[in-house]
Amino acid sequence: MKSKAMVLEQFNKPLSEREFDIPPLPEDGILVKLLASGVCGSDLHMAKGEDPRTPLPIILGHEGVGEIVQINGRKRDLNGEELNVGDWVIWDRGIVCNECFWCKVAKQPYLCPNRKIYGINLSCKDYPHLLGAYSEYMVLFRETQMIKVPKSIDPASIVLAGCSGATSMHGFDTLTEPLIGKTVVVQGAGPLGVFCVVAAKSLGASTVVMVSGTKQRLDLAKEAGADLLINRHESSLEERIAILQNLTHNRGADVVIEASGSSNALLEGFRLLRRGGTYLVTGVAVPQQCIPVDVYQDIVLKNIDLKGVWVSDARHLVQAVDLVIRHTKIFEKLVTHRLPLSQANEALRLVEERQALKVVLTFQ
Amino acid sequence: MKSKAMVLEQFNKPLSEREFDIPPLPEDGILVKLLASGVCGSDLHMAKGEDPRTPLPIILGHEGVGEIVQINGRKRDLNGEELNVGDWVIWDRGIVCNECFWCKVAKQPYLCPNRKIYGINLSCKDYPHLLGAYSEYMVLFRETQMIKVPKSIDPASIVLAGCSGATSMHGFDTLTEPLIGKTVVVQGAGPLGVFCVVAAKSLGASTVVMVSGTKQRLDLAKEAGADLLINRHESSLEERIAILQNLTHNRGADVVIEASGSSNALLEGFRLLRRGGTYLVTGVAVPQQCIPVDVYQDIVLKNIDLKGVWVSDARHLVQAVDLVIRHTKIFEKLVTHRLPLSQANEALRLVEERQALKVVLTFQ
Amino acid sequence: MKSKAMVLEQFNKPLSEREFDIPPLPEDGILVKLLASGVCGSDLHMAKGEDPRTPLPIILGHEGVGEIVQINGRKRDLNGEELNVGDWVIWDRGIVCNECFWCKVAKQPYLCPNRKIYGINLSCKDYPHLLGAYSEYMVLFRETQMIKVPKSIDPASIVLAGCSGATSMHGFDTLTEPLIGKTVVVQGAGPLGVFCVVAAKSLGASTVVMVSGTKQRLDLAKEAGADLLINRHESSLEERIAILQNLTHNRGADVVIEASGSSNALLEGFRLLRRGGTYLVTGVAVPQQCIPVDVYQDIVLKNIDLKGVWVSDARHLVQAVDLVIRHTKIFEKLVTHRLPLSQANEALRLVEERQALKVVLTFQ
Amino acid sequence: MKSKAMVLEQFNKPLSEREFDIPPLPEDGILVKLLASGVCGSDLHMAKGEDPRTPLPIILGHEGVGEIVQINGRKRDLNGEELNVGDWVIWDRGIVCNECFWCKVAKQPYLCPNRKIYGINLSCKDYPHLLGAYSEYMVLFRETQMIKVPKSIDPASIVLAGCSGATSMHGFDTLTEPLIGKTVVVQGAGPLGVFCVVAAKSLGASTVVMVSGTKQRLDLAKEAGADLLINRHESSLEERIAILQNLTHNRGADVVIEASGSSNALLEGFRLLRRGGTYLVTGVAVPQQCIPVDVYQDIVLKNIDLKGVWVSDARHLVQAVDLVIRHTKIFEKLVTHRLPLSQANEALRLVEERQALKVVLTFQ
Repeated sequence: MKSKAMVLEQFNKPLSEREFDIPPLPEDGILVKLLASGVCGSDLHMAKGEDPRTPLPIILGHEGVGEIVQINGRKRDLNGEELNVGDWVIWDRGIVCNECFWCKVAKQPYLCPNRKIYGINLSCKDYPHLLGAYSEYMVLFRETQMIKVPKSIDPASIVLAGCSGATSMHGFDTLTEPLIGKTVVVQGAGPLGVFCVVAAKSLGASTVVMVSGTKQRLDLAKEAGADLLINRHESSLEERIAILQNLTHNRGADVVIEASGSSNALLEGFRLLRRGGTYLVTGVAVPQQCIPVDVYQDIVLKNIDLKGVWVSDARHLVQAVDLVIRHTKIFEKLVTHRLPLSQANEALRLVEERQALKVVLTFQ
Repeated sequence: MKSKAMVLEQFNKPLSEREFDIPPLPEDGILVKLLASGVCGSDLHMAKGEDPRTPLPIILGHEGVGEIVQINGRKRDLNGEELNVGDWVIWDRGIVCNECFWCKVAKQPYLCPNRKIYGINLSCKDYPHLLGAYSEYMVLFRETQMIKVPKSIDPASIVLAGCSGATSMHGFDTLTEPLIGKTVVVQGAGPLGVFCVVAAKSLGASTVVMVSGTKQRLDLAKEAGADLLINRHESSLEERIAILQNLTHNRGADVVIEASGSSNALLEGFRLLRRGGTYLVTGVAVPQQCIPVDVYQDIVLKNIDLKGVWVSDARHLVQAVDLVIRHTKIFEKLVTHRLPLSQANEALRLVEERQALKVVLTFQ
Repeated sequence: MKSKAMVLEQFNKPLSEREFDIPPLPEDGILVKLLASGVCGSDLHMAKGEDPRTPLPIILGHEGVGEIVQINGRKRDLNGEELNVGDWVIWDRGIVCNECFWCKVAKQPYLCPNRKIYGINLSCKDYPHLLGAYSEYMVLFRETQMIKVPKSIDPASIVLAGCSGATSMHGFDTLTEPLIGKTVVVQGAGPLGVFCVVAAKSLGASTVVMVSGTKQRLDLAKEAGADLLINRHESSLEERIAILQNLTHNRGADVVIEASGSSNALLEGFRLLRRGGTYLVTGVAVPQQCIPVDVYQDIVLKNIDLKGVWVSDARHLVQAVDLVIRHTKIFEKLVTHRLPLSQANEALRLVEERQALKVVLTFQ
Repeated sequence: MKSKAMVLEQFNKPLSEREFDIPPLPEDGILVKLLASGVCGSDLHMAKGEDPRTPLPIILGHEGVGEIVQINGRKRDLNGEELNVGDWVIWDRGIVCNECFWCKVAKQPYLCPNRKIYGINLSCKDYPHLLGAYSEYMVLFRETQMIKVPKSIDPASIVLAGCSGATSMHGFDTLTEPLIGKTVVVQGAGPLGVFCVVAAKSLGASTVVMVSGTKQRLDLAKEAGADLLINRHESSLEERIAILQNLTHNRGADVVIEASGSSNALLEGFRLLRRGGTYLVTGVAVPQQCIPVDVYQDIVLKNIDLKGVWVSDARHLVQAVDLVIRHTKIFEKLVTHRLPLSQANEALRLVEERQALKVVLTFQ
């Protein structure tokens, strides 16, 4: 048995199509046949060598949903359901050590320094090789946390739960108050930001405002439930501040979520946030230049709570999957492009051009 | 100028229709003409002398929405909006002292021992007399916390935000985790319980199960968004436990909300709740008999968090009003009976017979 | 190599001294030579057959501290420190599955249904047999969470961190507000209650009141930092309520902690607690009769938060160990009786008679 | 009756000694004779015109403790205790409106936009004039939140509870986990920072590290309970990072508290904080230049929670007063200079030269 896979061999070069022998499974390991594999903005950063975690060569792809074709032992999902050949599953892209301070004492396993991540820091040089989702088949280690996915769902619609969705839920999970009656600004209408829109509305936010620079993506944010759309290229910062002030009895947004990937967004977000508000920074995933922060004006006088949100864990995956399953219609629409595995380079190009919202590799 | 009002003069006797002179307003006081006045289960308890807070004589009615007809001074609502003659407003039924430990240190103003409550502990013997909502006009003290209500809304649909709604939101406000992915059981399909259904769904609950004994009310709970209805009279406790186990991968409900008014409901709720779950007790509003609790089995071994929820404050009112305004269609349907002020005794009878969901006195 | 151990073979019979061959270690397992082994109230319940988790035969003892004599592989402690032969260690008595809903989604691993517990639900019939701390040697599985203990500490003084201490910290860990300025009542001056006294004072409580029925234990609670001692046998409930009212500007205690092991204590605790207070129930560890609870008066009108606290996890162990290490003088005094392993039956008798505070088996 | 007071008439000029007639008290107002009045770093900023809130002319002084000499009506303190002539009291420097969104909905009254602050934004031009604590007498409005102070306490030792202490407690009050087992770094050994040391130790921190540039102040931090002192002028940043790594099993500090007044401190604090840690910014109280922040490295990858802490409210004052009363010996030592009212200009000079820790004006 063989598996085709798209491999990053050198930074800034196209991925190469390679064929791998499917290896013998590790103890209690699982072999899945991919049904859909998400193309994430991080993949682009990795292909360009911007993400310091990337080993070479590597099969990219950390967002996958697949069908179990072999199980070496018995395995249950996060709900305690027994997994069997033929089941559809999604999995946490990270595997943590369950032994360290972050896993066991801080209960922040997403910060585990021993975290192994499919498609991100596991090279295909090393056994069992098929460790990224840009592949027909993947081998999952026994420690992989999984959830069964109902077969009624379009697999392409759920892949983003594995990364953008889970990271988004990590952010919301840190909020200590319900969103009822609150105004939430989301900065950036990519997959992460649009997921945040769905999540914010589902968690009770009264008004969700999307600020983005791309018309097509704003339209999708609207379908996702955004109450108000602001095109950054058709308004000034002062106008955006005024809009938020008008919406909020002159207070500003209760919560701002950075989902644009750009540190600079914070300089605007500080202005949109109300005194006493909360700022979730979820999108800044690769090294960038410093930004000038006015600590007195933006942090202290405003008494804000600014939270960096780094990746996610199994808890957030469960939350994200639940959200997608209850809003499948929306999430199907967010998948603007579906390509076969062999066109992974084209898929990355689409992500780079920001024409697309979510690009997914699909199989047969 | 005169105001008709329905007065409780003796316990267990019908309310009497009385006419009051409208008094000169207190400093910075406000005179409102009622648009709608909710009939709450507590009114029935008061009429029967079951609520130890009740002075006699009293104009009942602690849920009101009205139009401002006179303001003695300047006044802003909770959003800082200036209030003017002609505005529609809803108000917090309680007035707190802003000086005591609960108001200022514990930040639990709903527990303020000096809390004055329109229609509940203020007698019409005392100036300014018109202190309950079973009346054409009410006098509101300057300390009353108010929110403007848009004139596009059906006034009858929003009155329950003032009591059941705000109390419900008080309960949800104590939750420290989002409801995404969670199963919530609501016990009791009266106004409080059905409000809890809308709130739980709005806050992201994956599955809301309503357990009640009245078919018509279960139907309304379904319209309010309940995912599963269980008629207590058509199932055994063991069957209900089994249903919940099946729904939740054999864990039990993440959250149970007692909204039935009966202490005995807890004996069932403990069985439906999962280990590590949260129990909000929101409906037990008058003295009742003790129930036998198995502390080891139901509290400790299950590691539950059991929270008593007593009344509400201005924060919860704002949340409840926001919820109603965003779901007006649902809340209009929940008003099953509208009667004129003069039929307040009939209104109480309807509440007692539990034929109705929400009974509202309306004024043309 | 051999290990003597005290084995519970039948309920309500004395433990038998048995000699075991030390088995080959499991993969990555660890062999420790016990330095001290705590005798816990739970051991007595188990010996009497009152704890439904108990398999027979079993080596009792779930509180241990030992010296590593063999490591089969490499192992780090919860702080990432490498463990070596000769190190002193304490360990979490429970081993969880790291796969289930409670471990991974709820982040309440203490509720893991697959939790294995040394000295509590692991029989010595099964390999590797030496699974309880009433033994010269113990075999620890690789998944055991461990912390190095400095050799400057008296081993006997730290054993209670492994059970009473960790459970106590589990309770405090659920509090969402600092204890500064607060009055805490602890019910019961056994090892759990006295640990709670030290913890409450260390976490900033202004006033800690110990209510107990044993004079010697009250004296030890005073040495542990209790500000006020109340002997239950020398005061009436009404007097105790009055004392608390006087202490608290007529509000009642902010926090009450049940550490007596008796469900009935709640009936008193409800009376001592202020409106809006928090009740931690940490001591009720075995099945008991129901108690009559006045839901209206004690739960709802008081708006209390009642939390069942079941066992603990590695996080709480780390907290408890930290507390002991910083207060060694106190904890040495709490060890009122030290006996050799062979006198384990006498040790259990001392616990039963409540003459002792902490009884520890020591090994030279 | 007359009161001498020290008045700021022009920025960057010495305060002038003026004599005021004591005015008739406002309704329910209170006249206090000052016992001690704290000189705060903010006073210096105000005198220099650096604090945008300052009206002219103004009697400076927002930290006071006094004896009641006249009460116009009845008044209770925050504990419900009746206040009488002769009582010693401390008060919240801010008076909030109890009507706005921040007071009533967000429950963050310290952010009330209508907050009036003795000695900070109330001019002595306006009735009742005696509105700052650099004065023999002060007039307190009825809305002032007060706490009785026991006469056994040295009044000078408690004044800082009114500003630095309460602000410090505001910071600690936002922490959602106990400090047991944690390492806390405090940046800056002025009154705010040293108060933070006492608070952190009282709340259970395992290790408190003070980083400061002044030897005398470091010595006082040690007396206040700091476990480790680092002189910024005798070590490099890389050395300080190494010290923290060594202390924390290579993780970094769990909590860093900026109490230096300088935005630049954050650039160091980010390096000292562990992944998943919390940063409280409490000292940056006047406008300053921007600092360059690496959002990816310092905020997101580290997944930190950065909280701006602006002033305080009555809750925090109660906490701070409780802390001082339980640690009077320490706080007496922190008062390094006591001067009479007439030497207020000298007192400001001492604060500016940072020779002192706490400077207090005393009145015999």
